[in-house]
Amino acid sequence: MTIQDSVRPEIRQMKGYVSGEQPAFGKFIKLNTNENPFEPSNKVIDAIHDTAAGKLNVYPDAMANSFRIAAAEVLGVDQDWILCGNGSDDLLTIITRTFVSPGSKIRIPYPSYVLYRTLADIQGAAIEEIPFDKNWKLPESFGADDDNLSLVFLPNPNSPSGTVISPEGVLKLANSISCPLVVDEAYADFASANCLHLVKEASNIIVTRTLSKSYGLAGLRFGFAVANPETIAEMQKVKDSYNCDALAIAGATAAISDQHWLQGNIRIVKSLRGVMESELSKLGFDVQPSEANFVWCKHPDFDSKELYDKLKENHILVRYMDYPNWGDGIRISIGTSNQISALITILESIITV
Amino acid sequence: MTIQDSVRPEIRQMKGYVSGEQPAFGKFIKLNTNENPFEPSNKVIDAIHDTAAGKLNVYPDAMANSFRIAAAEVLGVDQDWILCGNGSDDLLTIITRTFVSPGSKIRIPYPSYVLYRTLADIQGAAIEEIPFDKNWKLPESFGADDDNLSLVFLPNPNSPSGTVISPEGVLKLANSISCPLVVDEAYADFASANCLHLVKEASNIIVTRTLSKSYGLAGLRFGFAVANPETIAEMQKVKDSYNCDALAIAGATAAISDQHWLQGNIRIVKSLRGVMESELSKLGFDVQPSEANFVWCKHPDFDSKELYDKLKENHILVRYMDYPNWGDGIRISIGTSNQISALITILESIITV
Repeated sequence: MTIQDSVRPEIRQMKGYVSGEQPAFGKFIKLNTNENPFEPSNKVIDAIHDTAAGKLNVYPDAMANSFRIAAAEVLGVDQDWILCGNGSDDLLTIITRTFVSPGSKIRIPYPSYVLYRTLADIQGAAIEEIPFDKNWKLPESFGADDDNLSLVFLPNPNSPSGTVISPEGVLKLANSISCPLVVDEAYADFASANCLHLVKEASNIIVTRTLSKSYGLAGLRFGFAVANPETIAEMQKVKDSYNCDALAIAGATAAISDQHWLQGNIRIVKSLRGVMESELSKLGFDVQPSEANFVWCKHPDFDSKELYDKLKENHILVRYMDYPNWGDGIRISIGTSNQISALITILESIITV
Repeated sequence: MTIQDSVRPEIRQMKGYVSGEQPAFGKFIKLNTNENPFEPSNKVIDAIHDTAAGKLNVYPDAMANSFRIAAAEVLGVDQDWILCGNGSDDLLTIITRTFVSPGSKIRIPYPSYVLYRTLADIQGAAIEEIPFDKNWKLPESFGADDDNLSLVFLPNPNSPSGTVISPEGVLKLANSISCPLVVDEAYADFASANCLHLVKEASNIIVTRTLSKSYGLAGLRFGFAVANPETIAEMQKVKDSYNCDALAIAGATAAISDQHWLQGNIRIVKSLRGVMESELSKLGFDVQPSEANFVWCKHPDFDSKELYDKLKENHILVRYMDYPNWGDGIRISIGTSNQISALITILESIITV
């Protein structure tokens, strides 16, 4: 009898999700995990300082109500439409455990966020990947109903492409299936449209958001889901009772209350995205126009893995993605203008050799 | 088609775990959720301040290695024997998802921590409760092996009793079953012995700890599991990739590095526990001698629920527990000496009327 014999077969067979490299040593320009290149609003730091100096010996508010109240005002929904989580990964886990019975099926587009497969594996569910077409649109079959279908994940904007499905398309999709549709809007603040308002039009839509990207708070672990209160109440049963800590709640509340900071940050990131797209194009890259805080590109004359390796040798980390039966490419997070200059300079030296 | 139809039947039927009351309004003396009555070490606050002023826009270290390095030294194990979690609830969830297949069985003592049943329900597992005898010892049947048994939880010290099973008893138990045995040591720092060293003697023992109680950090959400590296590696696959945030990691690292603070705090809490036990006894309560930071008691002449209600009217919150087919009682967390005085004064006025 070994430990391996006690582990669930689904877990034993899994490799486990591997997130982007976080180098512990050495100085790198990190353009690989879609972090915001700018530090968060000072109001966030102040709120965390105040809370840390307070009563950390006491349990946090289990529902993070200060955040829900502030977010309800910003988002134009009542607070019982909001559930907070320890990053949006926590919410994706909660959603999976609420709706996905072992043996049922989760549908996802391909290629997209690799974590969805891990969530299905852990839950003992099957995964059905429906490929995007070459214009990053989804075929009709993505909306086909199926008795064994328990959940559909739609990252929108999608990663690695940075492309979006329109709200009209999302609503049509939601109406064509009878299970919940999770619109994972991790990057929606950088897009020209989002689906938040659709939660009132289709009761099976759950929108998830994170503060890791647009609010510059990847270190804080805070996300939230928006859905009708009946859905939120079921998800609440599944979450760990105190899933958000007091510091994260205080920081997140300050962050969402500072929409001035957010709008300024989004404007700058989008402008830098334009610069990066244009510079990469000048170097001959095929660049997918992005609605997120990263761009997906490939050079017709250079191997993507080699470009990744050479950038890493030069202390610039980007994300090399190789999708079986699909192809590979490089996903580059939007950095500061200095970081973009450094990237372009190195790429230029590689490409023009 | 309603949302309810999409929810897993196990979740739909659940009531959901209800944690101790956290009153949002009004001034209460909170002796109901076993928080530490003292604020944490100043070094924790300083570490959080420094981290908040740093780069919160970057993802935290996925494995919380700064904590693992510090904890390894304090605990005398290598760091690959340690997995960190967003509170020990996160670790209990991870353990359940790693080892418990739907349809299998989790064994727990009764009465004990109510959350274990919730974890079993969410996972679609059965729960087998084995009652403690009247001296809070476990019968032989608690160690009976069973093909369908996938996990055994043993809170030690137990809640609500504050009693312990000796390390010798725990080792014997681990050797008698072929599934993992989780020794939930949330309160072990207040006890005269613990089972941490047993992880090297029985490969199926997993010890869980929290910083919520003895380190005064319930607001921070940080816990850890100690087990052999093979077990830790499997659990790592199941955890959310960034399950601990940068502030919690920094605070927890500072906390476990300050053993001087911990030992001082434990000494004071134990001394106050002696005071509370003795004062309650003087008022005629049957008091169970405790190895935790709470005491379990019952008055022979007064209804426990009524005592709870009257204390609440007087703005003192304790935990009233009523266990079906077992009985009820009151669990009171150890407070400051002022809080204990207030409690005893109110109880005296109720009892001597």
